[in-house]
Amino acid sequence: MDTSSSGPPTDHSGLEVLSLDECRQLLDTQQIGRIAFISTGEPLILPVTYRMHRGHIVFRTTTGEKLDAARNAASVGFEIDEWDASDQSGWSVIVGGTAQDVEDPAEITELKELGLRPWADTVARNNWVRIIPNEISGRRI
Amino acid sequence: MDTSSSGPPTDHSGLEVLSLDECRQLLDTQQIGRIAFISTGEPLILPVTYRMHRGHIVFRTTTGEKLDAARNAASVGFEIDEWDASDQSGWSVIVGGTAQDVEDPAEITELKELGLRPWADTVARNNWVRIIPNEISGRRI
Repeated sequence: MDTSSSGPPTDHSGLEVLSLDECRQLLDTQQIGRIAFISTGEPLILPVTYRMHRGHIVFRTTTGEKLDAARNAASVGFEIDEWDASDQSGWSVIVGGTAQDVEDPAEITELKELGLRPWADTVARNNWVRIIPNEISGRRI
Repeated sequence: MDTSSSGPPTDHSGLEVLSLDECRQLLDTQQIGRIAFISTGEPLILPVTYRMHRGHIVFRTTTGEKLDAARNAASVGFEIDEWDASDQSGWSVIVGGTAQDVEDPAEITELKELGLRPWADTVARNNWVRIIPNEISGRRI
């Protein structure tokens, strides 16, 4: 991070670096993010409808790869962003963390009260996964 | 994929499955995608400004993690999507592939003619990376 010149700090690519507070605010306001995890040895990205809860990223899932990554308490990446092609502006926040199944019935009851409804509702998504962030960073163009 | 009922095919989550042609058309029309790769053992997602060229996803980068993943001919994930919160609709296309440095000067000359200008232009991005897709799939909500 280059903080020697005036203006907001920038990274080695010349992008403005967001503060942790800004990153958290952006995480609080988005609905859709993308999770990356290792599936049979290869990185896979999938979009998820999520909410923040007690500092964790939480989402619902049916059985499948997303849940399997969580069950193995795997390292995951998570990303949100927003872009405006008209003036080529935008921002992104990336999170590195650990995914876990949520198993405690009391906590699941709490999560159900967040009002998180998956956009696709043709299949029940009764399993909850949390991502516990280890690292949060953000950039703005 | 469930093709037994009428209507478009759906996956195990109940999402509509896009055809390969639809996926390719969507890849041709977007400007920003996200690449996922393994960085020090953990999955990392980064947004990139990209173009399609001869069936490959190409983007420019300065030195750093994105290029290092390419130099190791690493397996990468790539994703594009578009969402409309007002009617909770959207789609995503995910690609699994191999990243490579582009080194042939004649090919770099071709790539420069694609008109791909990174949105952030404060730092020169003189290195080109291609992703050679192995798998392409898409879903619509």
